[in-house]
Amino acid sequence: MNTAPFNPTSLFAERMSGVPTSFIREILKTTVQPDIISFAGGLPNPALFPVEAFQRAADTVFSMSGRIALQYAQTEGYLPLREYIAARYKKIQGLDIKPEEILITSGSQQGIDLVGKVLVNPGDTIAMESPGYLGAIQSLSVYQPNFAGVTLTNEGVDVDELEALYDKQAVKLFSAIPNFQNPTGISYTEATRERVASALMGRNTIVVEDDPYGDLRFAGVRAKSLRSYFGDQCIMFGSFSKIAAPGFRLGWVVAAKPLMEKLIIAKQATDLHTNFVGQRIMHEYLVNNDLDAHIRRITDAYSSQCEAMLGSIARHFPAEAVSTKPEGGMFVWVTMPEHFSTVKFFDAAIKQKVAFVPGVPFYVNGGGSNTMRLNYSCSDAATIEEGIKRLGTLMREMLPQGATA
Amino acid sequence: MNTAPFNPTSLFAERMSGVPTSFIREILKTTVQPDIISFAGGLPNPALFPVEAFQRAADTVFSMSGRIALQYAQTEGYLPLREYIAARYKKIQGLDIKPEEILITSGSQQGIDLVGKVLVNPGDTIAMESPGYLGAIQSLSVYQPNFAGVTLTNEGVDVDELEALYDKQAVKLFSAIPNFQNPTGISYTEATRERVASALMGRNTIVVEDDPYGDLRFAGVRAKSLRSYFGDQCIMFGSFSKIAAPGFRLGWVVAAKPLMEKLIIAKQATDLHTNFVGQRIMHEYLVNNDLDAHIRRITDAYSSQCEAMLGSIARHFPAEAVSTKPEGGMFVWVTMPEHFSTVKFFDAAIKQKVAFVPGVPFYVNGGGSNTMRLNYSCSDAATIEEGIKRLGTLMREMLPQGATA
Repeated sequence: MNTAPFNPTSLFAERMSGVPTSFIREILKTTVQPDIISFAGGLPNPALFPVEAFQRAADTVFSMSGRIALQYAQTEGYLPLREYIAARYKKIQGLDIKPEEILITSGSQQGIDLVGKVLVNPGDTIAMESPGYLGAIQSLSVYQPNFAGVTLTNEGVDVDELEALYDKQAVKLFSAIPNFQNPTGISYTEATRERVASALMGRNTIVVEDDPYGDLRFAGVRAKSLRSYFGDQCIMFGSFSKIAAPGFRLGWVVAAKPLMEKLIIAKQATDLHTNFVGQRIMHEYLVNNDLDAHIRRITDAYSSQCEAMLGSIARHFPAEAVSTKPEGGMFVWVTMPEHFSTVKFFDAAIKQKVAFVPGVPFYVNGGGSNTMRLNYSCSDAATIEEGIKRLGTLMREMLPQGATA
Repeated sequence: MNTAPFNPTSLFAERMSGVPTSFIREILKTTVQPDIISFAGGLPNPALFPVEAFQRAADTVFSMSGRIALQYAQTEGYLPLREYIAARYKKIQGLDIKPEEILITSGSQQGIDLVGKVLVNPGDTIAMESPGYLGAIQSLSVYQPNFAGVTLTNEGVDVDELEALYDKQAVKLFSAIPNFQNPTGISYTEATRERVASALMGRNTIVVEDDPYGDLRFAGVRAKSLRSYFGDQCIMFGSFSKIAAPGFRLGWVVAAKPLMEKLIIAKQATDLHTNFVGQRIMHEYLVNNDLDAHIRRITDAYSSQCEAMLGSIARHFPAEAVSTKPEGGMFVWVTMPEHFSTVKFFDAAIKQKVAFVPGVPFYVNGGGSNTMRLNYSCSDAATIEEGIKRLGTLMREMLPQGATA
């Protein structure tokens, strides 16, 4: 006879105990006051959203195919939208992807969740860039893996370290953001990509290439995707959030059979299909507007904002603060001397009304307490100058006497 | 040294091995030909979608708050939409639900997935109506529970059987659709609800009350919700799919702290938040239109269609075919004599261009091979008459000689 009294916390599944409460989520709550200069977010600049074009697209969808757009739809996603994505892969990157290898998801975040659901047993090892993308860490931790952080250098992942990990044990996934990585802004060089390929190709592992920022390049040239090396061994994630708008929650997963079959079953079990009204509006927008011209408007803006931030950093941060030099994307990563705590620095900075994200949560195996992520996509040059100036002043105060250049 | 060659099927997580490939999904594929009379789906009638009202709502949202609607949003969902849902619970059912106890999800299907994620350890027992909702069976099976089917009678779940199960072992969840259940159309009587409450109240278990059809009542009176008995021990799912339109994928979960806190973490890990454009359009629609008047249009139509189906069944099915008499919702359930196989019947019916769903997949512990689900929400009276007539003729052919009344 079972007569334990109702106690909801005793009912939680074990998988939830390892999920980090989102540090960024908590930080963002402290930064909603309007007088805060926030470099903490990871939001695209809403001033660049093509609002009127989406409005026209929505009007057309409701006029021409309202009853279909409002009905249940197939799990895989709207076929013409998947065809558009496949054609764009061909045009931009020369990749041959079939529409049936594309599954539309509720943002690429859901792609990560589905891959975890389909592939990760408790205890499986996942190789994760260190520092790595917090959304992937949080999403995958539900499936109780052992995360193995692999150092990210300025040229991309440390391939010797990656190869040593693979030589030592079975690794289910290697999760990478090769272009303008979140949180660092670092891109893998062509040489690093080649070395990753020769290290992992043919091994019994999946390479996950998450590329939400790849189109947001404002300097240098696009390197070959990991997919072009790995083929079907590689799963790709893509997203409309950074190149069009995130409010629709529209992303996608690229995977070959038999993985795609399992992903579709998992997607159906999770939420049947991605919101169809949004898929139809996005497709209508894409076929009636010049996406590349729109992306150039975004990259022009982000280029200026990044330049402003790097300029302000050069003017106001002490020489001990070392920052990355992104060629695209939305983030700059700053590394301070070893014993400088960016968590303590955050508390002091908030009092000066400036916010950023301390680096600790991005490291799956600890460390990084002297690092931080700065976002430039949502602030203009004057705001960036003022915020970075305040941070620089505070850094000099907090650095040991005489250590400041 | 790990040198196993790439073999994707060897990489699948164990949790996926127990997930049923959706039988309905496969059936629906065979029924897309335009000359098929399909009673197989579970779709709301698209002729009743308020397309123009949604079009106006979308236009207003893009005009008035485009940049906000297109941006990332909070995980919990749009607060005014949650306030609307809370107020509606008060108005329609007298329930006191706070907006912070409501999480907007990608359809109520995602609510089921999140509850599984947050609560179900492998091997946990889930009490499930038998026959039960296929979406819940599929979604929860990912979390590797032991399903215990509890017989559904014409008055609702068999409470003696339910209580005996709980007396024997720990049960993590009891999953119920008390109003116009999918697949049977059965509603729990007030007496059954009271008995469920006195059997399970205060036990260390969660009662899941899934209520996508509750507002679609065309006969009888609404009984008290399980939530009104169980309070915080009860999680509720709700959905706009059946009362407005499913294409937005907008549903919700009602749960009290501390469960809600875990659900929010799980939601964030899964897809950050539900598509915000859709939430804003739905809210704009709801505050500018009379939802109850719209629901009356739906129930008027479904009432006629249900009456047509029951009338056709009375005229054309043999006396051995016993059907439920729904007071709302979208489904009729037919039970044939014990040795009649509705799977074989399905194969024969498809040749006569009529489709339905055989009952087997709705039973978590086997059985039900003589049952079937018929949907009436998407067919007019003449189509229903023709389809049921064909099925009736075929039934008489397939029943043993002399057994037909």
